[in-house]
Amino acid sequence: MENFSSKLLQTAVDEFSKLPGIGKKTSLRLVLHLLKQEEDETECFANSIVNLRKHIQYCKKCFNISDHEICDICSSKKRDTSLICVVEDLRDVIAIENTGQYYGLYHVLGGIISPMDGIGPNDLTIEALIERVNKEDINEIILALSTTMEGDTTNFYISRKLQDTNVKLSTIARGIAIGDELEYADEITLGRSILNRTPYQINMFNSQK
Amino acid sequence: MENFSSKLLQTAVDEFSKLPGIGKKTSLRLVLHLLKQEEDETECFANSIVNLRKHIQYCKKCFNISDHEICDICSSKKRDTSLICVVEDLRDVIAIENTGQYYGLYHVLGGIISPMDGIGPNDLTIEALIERVNKEDINEIILALSTTMEGDTTNFYISRKLQDTNVKLSTIARGIAIGDELEYADEITLGRSILNRTPYQINMFNSQK
Repeated sequence: MENFSSKLLQTAVDEFSKLPGIGKKTSLRLVLHLLKQEEDETECFANSIVNLRKHIQYCKKCFNISDHEICDICSSKKRDTSLICVVEDLRDVIAIENTGQYYGLYHVLGGIISPMDGIGPNDLTIEALIERVNKEDINEIILALSTTMEGDTTNFYISRKLQDTNVKLSTIARGIAIGDELEYADEITLGRSILNRTPYQINMFNSQK
Repeated sequence: MENFSSKLLQTAVDEFSKLPGIGKKTSLRLVLHLLKQEEDETECFANSIVNLRKHIQYCKKCFNISDHEICDICSSKKRDTSLICVVEDLRDVIAIENTGQYYGLYHVLGGIISPMDGIGPNDLTIEALIERVNKEDINEIILALSTTMEGDTTNFYISRKLQDTNVKLSTIARGIAIGDELEYADEITLGRSILNRTPYQINMFNSQK
């Protein structure tokens, strides 16, 4: 894929193929698609990226992506401000928001502690979280990080930092996913889900609207 | 995927997911990747698209994408100007160029005749091809279109248009792909490849450098 007759085309294809998961062939397909669009539509596309990059802010409270100093979730009056859910990044916020089950606030760490990748506690927003707990009236912190070594390390670090406060710490429930079959579950998940069994309720899953 | 905390982010994700084969999740991943880049890198990305869309031209001779009035292939002195390969679009030019086996010129039709999609001969650059044959000194035209009903129709239409000229018409060879196993080939391809068998030469595949 190197014999383009046009330098402009070459440049655009090269730029697209820098994106994660986009190879040269896909890149060419996307660029040719944009070429077929009206000129103002292509400009809309390009402007949306430049505007985003230029004007985006991170909420000063929870570090979620926001158009303002304080994000819509933090400034909402419908939210339970005594509850903070700690997540790794923005995508987790979106995932949890889409469940429609959570009405507290968030705290976006910006990653998890991972010495292998050179990410220590100071690269994350953990200090700001501790400050929030000290200043605001927080009852409970839900740790919603990945179930990996790094996630566990981060959970442990945060729990140590908060041990002198009265805040309640919890983690999201781990277990067999709804709709999954037992025989295909890995042993660790299955083992944990037996240890952490919950009292049976009729219609317990249907009641989660 | 609808609860974005930022309108700017929402707009960028929406724009990306208009691209073919890019869903909302991939779109978000790409946009977050661009957000992590330096501001000038993101601008380079956006500019490459706007520049391409604004300044791109189509070669006046062969209708290939080009930065100039006449493309590099048409203006090259190393090319055999008596040979034209007729292709559907730019991607075919790139594919053939990458083989390193072809030293003639091209003619990009911009599609193939397809009544189902409302594409007739006048939507393509067939007239310009006939004009080239009449004006330039062309020996042979290679038809390199898809082996579909539409491709065959287009081949037939072009051959009828050129029947009063002295130009030699050929199509690219169809047969079993190199490296393919016979048992998995479809019957039509296998049947044709027996009918159009070629004389055996020692090292015939190795000699195609």
